[in-house]
Formats: sequence, structure tokens, C-alpha cells
Amino acid sequence: MSTVYQATASAPVNIAVIKYWGKRDTKLILPTNSSLSVTLDQDHLRSTTTSRADPSFVKDTLWLNGKEDEIKPGGRLATCIFELKRLRQATVENEDPTAPKLSTYKVHIASYNNFPTAAGLASSASGFAALVASLAQLYALPVSPSTLSIIARQGSGSACRSLYGGFVAWQEGVHPDGSDSLAIQVAPQSHWPEIHALICVVSDDKKGTSSTSGMQLTVETSPLLQHRIKAVVPQRMKDISKAILEKDFDTFARITMADSNQFHAVALDTEPPIFYLNDVSRAIIAVIVEYNRLSLANGQGYKAAYTYDAGPNAVIYTEEKNIKEIIQLIVSFFPQKEGTFKDNLGVFAQGAEVNAQAAVPPGFNGLIHTRVGDGPRALGEEEALLGPEGTPKTLE
Amino acid sequence: MSTVYQATASAPVNIAVIKYWGKRDTKLILPTNSSLSVTLDQDHLRSTTTSRADPSFVKDTLWLNGKEDEIKPGGRLATCIFELKRLRQATVENEDPTAPKLSTYKVHIASYNNFPTAAGLASSASGFAALVASLAQLYALPVSPSTLSIIARQGSGSACRSLYGGFVAWQEGVHPDGSDSLAIQVAPQSHWPEIHALICVVSDDKKGTSSTSGMQLTVETSPLLQHRIKAVVPQRMKDISKAILEKDFDTFARITMADSNQFHAVALDTEPPIFYLNDVSRAIIAVIVEYNRLSLANGQGYKAAYTYDAGPNAVIYTEEKNIKEIIQLIVSFFPQKEGTFKDNLGVFAQGAEVNAQAAVPPGFNGLIHTRVGDGPRALGEEEALLGPEGTPKTLE
Repeated sequence: MSTVYQATASAPVNIAVIKYWGKRDTKLILPTNSSLSVTLDQDHLRSTTTSRADPSFVKDTLWLNGKEDEIKPGGRLATCIFELKRLRQATVENEDPTAPKLSTYKVHIASYNNFPTAAGLASSASGFAALVASLAQLYALPVSPSTLSIIARQGSGSACRSLYGGFVAWQEGVHPDGSDSLAIQVAPQSHWPEIHALICVVSDDKKGTSSTSGMQLTVETSPLLQHRIKAVVPQRMKDISKAILEKDFDTFARITMADSNQFHAVALDTEPPIFYLNDVSRAIIAVIVEYNRLSLANGQGYKAAYTYDAGPNAVIYTEEKNIKEIIQLIVSFFPQKEGTFKDNLGVFAQGAEVNAQAAVPPGFNGLIHTRVGDGPRALGEEEALLGPEGTPKTLE
Repeated sequence: MSTVYQATASAPVNIAVIKYWGKRDTKLILPTNSSLSVTLDQDHLRSTTTSRADPSFVKDTLWLNGKEDEIKPGGRLATCIFELKRLRQATVENEDPTAPKLSTYKVHIASYNNFPTAAGLASSASGFAALVASLAQLYALPVSPSTLSIIARQGSGSACRSLYGGFVAWQEGVHPDGSDSLAIQVAPQSHWPEIHALICVVSDDKKGTSSTSGMQLTVETSPLLQHRIKAVVPQRMKDISKAILEKDFDTFARITMADSNQFHAVALDTEPPIFYLNDVSRAIIAVIVEYNRLSLANGQGYKAAYTYDAGPNAVIYTEEKNIKEIIQLIVSFFPQKEGTFKDNLGVFAQGAEVNAQAAVPPGFNGLIHTRVGDGPRALGEEEALLGPEGTPKTLE
């Protein structure tokens, strides 16, 4: 009986507070500016990936949510797998001649996102992070998450930030080969576990511009983007890192909202203009602005910070002490359909009528309550997505 | 029987293609950047003002649409009236001792806009331009429209551009006293009369931020605005002036749309962010972008340019040859209520069913077809808004 070389890992979603928008190298995925994100709790949102290397496999194969996904030669998936095999050879097999030559075996990979694509949450960050984490574990790579983040970055830029928990910066770097364009941890989850997030899933009938094509259109046509890159983001990176280290929620909130606004401003300054926010997104902003205005007037400082990625969904960051009030606020302005809010963290007493409203406004599809979380996790065999044959288990 | 000193003038609306957003002096209304607009035809949209000076009047009094409006001491109306009286004295009475001392008389002023406030069109530009034009006519001021524009500017910034017909630049100027912050005519209406405009009146349930307070919030908080002012607008002013002189619609359209987008981008980059475009505005942009894309693909160049001021209404500039197609395009995407499109310029054969659609989407309140027009007009006694007693005639 031969050894089974298999590993399973999960990786988190991250939501940026300083936005990544624009590549200086589209092949290596080198960004035009540094960015910073909060890693969200894998207990609620995660990608899970099982990787197996076996001499009997005839080609590298990947299944995403049970369906085979093509690994295009030279494509992003192929690049990540290739780089991890290269790292296995360089750091393990070349160092220890007795180590099995896993880098020469084909791999089977099964990946699964526990949140529906319809939720409008980008799964590429957690997906590539889980892929890289599971292969790194399979290959027993003696490298840091920052090194792995360089590989994940080549799968999907923001994936590099999902290699760490807590508060994570993606440093743009200066080298043309991308060797210093990587993620570092600004602070771990344990530093500021009180940071909670409420994801407002806003439905949109319009198909938005993909972020990959949209950001390059902005790079090519927006007169404002270069100013953002050179004159605005570097200072914001310093200021928000400091705010995180000092747990200064006021500064964290102000910069988070300003940077979300500015990202959407440069998208709008693109030719033709790119819009991701719709009327529901705007209404959520208005509610949060007013909520903070009242709180500031009462001398209580900022209580909430909205941020929007390349779509209409809001992510509202807050401190734990305010989360219940914010959920109630959002639900009162945007009554939710039965079952669209799941009380993940037990904010409400069992049976509380948080979903009781009858009216369901169009354009709102639910709420997800989560919080800052940890980095990729190594999972046990019982969580593996590949069965004995090296093909995906049937998911019930 | 004493002489009646009375004059009536009308003045046009103008819609900017390079946007004015931000003051460097809020009292004198000196802008942070130059701007450029198209004056629209007074046959369709206008303000009309009658001014009378009489020794029997006890105070300066103004009626707007039949209702008395307070002239606050030191306010914008008072400033305009004061400056015009001063100019009467300096340029007429001091030069010719026999000229009646109208500058010492109180004035009665009646003003009327022929478009409802509900149309969401700013009436302050045409209103202040008509006020200044009628008083300048009453006082027989021997000065140019550019000189008058300096006074109109102190009533409402963009009013200065309504002192000329055709294509009008508001030069920001450099003097702290505002003496060189004035309007000049880039080209008269007769240079490019084929420029037509379709105003899409979009209803909005949200009360938007006023442009007066909004623009100063942008000046104070937007990191992108300064870059727009210094690095973007000056070149666009040159390029669009050249495009107008060369009747180069492609360049005119590209810059017009880019500058509208950038104005809304800096509004969004404001803290808290300012949104003027709603989902209907966005949908109109998408229609025009696609319409131009198809036209460009057919080698026909740009056919239409959208622009949005501080509200959700679109103004679509086009050349006369394309206006019928554009009206049909807009009506097909946004079916109009009966009577909300008035065929001002006889584009459609009498009885044509342009309004036939039954469905009326929410958020759309009609279309106004107009074109580039002339500057303020002196009107005859039969158009006067003041009756024999010097009070407003009853409007039927």
C-alpha cells in the first residue's frame, strides 16, 4: 500500500480598507499601489481546498465546487501550481535527497467555497489562498506566509492578503520580478478581535465591469488615478496601520470610508465610466453617514465604517460593542426577508424577531455578520474534499 | 406725466461641459477653475426680468414668479443691484450731468422662469443673468457682456456664462478682487448652430446636497480636487475650445463626458461623499456609451455626449443630424408619459407617436429638446412683467 500525499486547508476572505485598483504588471499581478485589508473569520466565510500528489495521476486537475475547471497552460492556476512545485523542489527535494519527489507528480485539487457566488463576494482571494495553503502543506514547504503570498498574488492579486489573519498589508514592492510585492501582517486577529463586519448583500440586475478589466481601463484613462497612487495612498497606508496598532477606530473608520469613496471616484473617472454602487449602496452610505454624525455629535466618535469593493455590496466595519445596534439599524432601514440574516455570533436572543418585517425592498439580499479572523488553517483528513480515488467526494 | 424708466430682458440657461465645482473666494464667487458651457435656446428655457426705477419707490423689491423675494442686505441680490447702480453712476451719470439719476432711485424687479422648479433645472444662472441684463438695459450701461458677467457672477457663479450666447468660457482669473473672473464668448451660436441638446429630466426622491455647500465640502476634503484643478482642467479648457472652433464633435463629446464624470468623481471623493447620479442617470450613461460604441465601430465617430450637473438630470449634446435618432433611442429605453416630450423643434411629423408607450418607468419625468442659443435679449413693453403701478402683472 502506497502513501497518500494529501493535504486540506481552508483560507479566509479579506475585505480591503485601502483599495487595490490597478496593475503595473498584468502578468505578474504587480499593483500600482499598496493596499490593506481585514481578514474575515473562516468560521463564516471560507474556501477549502484539498490537494493530492500521486505518480498515477496523468494531469494536474482542479474541481471547483465539484465541477472540473480547466487549468489553462500559462494561466493563473497553472502559474501557481508550477511555482509551488518549483518551491518544493528547491526548498525540500534539493535539500533532502530522501524526500519524495512530489514536485514531479501531477496533482488533483478540489476546492469549495462555503458561500454562494450569488452572494456577490469575490471568491478568488480565498480560493487562491486556500489552493496555495493546501499545496504548501502537501509539499511541507519551509517558507513564510509572505513567501507564499507572492505565489497567491499571481493567482489573484488580493489573494496574497488572505495568507495572513488579522490586519494585512500588501506591499506594492519595487522589483520588476515581483519578489517584494507581498503580504505582511500589520497586526494579528488577537490584537483587535473586537473588529466586527456586517456584509450587506445588495442585489444588482446589471452585470458590473469585471475588476480585472475595469482596473486596467482606469489605469489607462483616469487622470485622477496617478494622483491617488502617488500622493494619497502612501500616507493612508501609514495612517491606517498606525490606527490599527493603536486600536484607533475613529481614524480607521475615516480612512476606510475615504478610501472606498476614492476607489469608486477613480472608477467613475474612467472612460467609459465604471459604476459599482447602485441606489441601495448609496442609501446604506447615507444611513452610516447619519449614524456617525449623530454619534460624533454625542461625543462618541465614529461607530461604523462602510467599504465597497467592485460591486454594490457594503461591508460595514464596527467594534463589537456597536454591532447589535448596527444590525438593528440596517434591518430597520432595509427590512430583510425571513432567513436572510443568520445570527452567526449570537447577537440576538434565540427567537428574537430580527427578521420580522414584512416588507422586503427590492435590491437587498441579506446580511452576514462576521468579524476579524485568522489565517489559513490546516484541516484534518475528515474535512478532505477528495475521496480515496483522488476525485471529489460527493457533497451532500 | 413722468417718464417711466423700465426695461425687460430675457436670459438663457447654460449647461457646462467643463464643470465649475469649488470657490476660492465664497463672497466674490471666484472659482477654483475655469469652466465652459453651451448657452441653450431661450425659445424653450428662459428667465425674463422687468426692472423699473422710480423716485416714488420706497425700497428695492423683487418678485420671483409673482412672489416677493427678500433682498437681504449684503446678500447676493443686493450685491448685484448695488454694483449695477454703482456702474450707472460711474459710467453714465458722472459722464453726462443731464442723465437722470436713476442710480439714486429704488428699483422694482419682477422675474419669471418659464420652466418649473420641479424640472430640476437650476434657475439661478438664467435668473441672475436676466436680472443683470434688464438692469443694464434700464441703466443704459455702456459696458460689454463680459463686464456685466462680473456682476452676474456675484449673484450666482454660473450666471456669468449666461451673459453670452453660443459657447462661453468663464475664465477663473487671478486677481483677488475678481475683476478678471469673467465670461468670454468662445464662439457664437451662429458658428455651430447644429449643436442640439436633449434634457432628460430624471426624478429623484432624495434631496441632493446643494451645489453651494457641496462644492465647498469638496474643496475642503477631496484629495483629488486639487489635482483636477491644477493638472486636468487647464488642458481640457484649451482642447475643448479648439474642438468648438473646429466643430470637432468627437473631441467635444469625449471631453464633455470625461469632465462630467470627473466632476462626479470629486463629489464622490468628498467627506462625506456626495452623489448626484442615481440608477436612472447611470442607465442613461450606459445607453449613450453603447450608442457611441456602435457608432465608433461603424466609423461614424461619437454621436452624443452626456453631461450631468449637481442632480440626476442628463443633458445630451448631439449634432442636429442625430437628434431624432437619439430621442427615439431614449424614448425606447425610457418610455415617456403622454405629454412629457414636447416636440419643440418639429423633429417628428405631426401626430407621430413618440409618446405612445404605455409603461412609465419610475424615475423619469420627461424630455426637453433644445439647442445652442443666443445671449440675453431686450424685450418690448408688451413682454413686461410689471404693470402700470410697478407691481407684478397677474400671470394667467
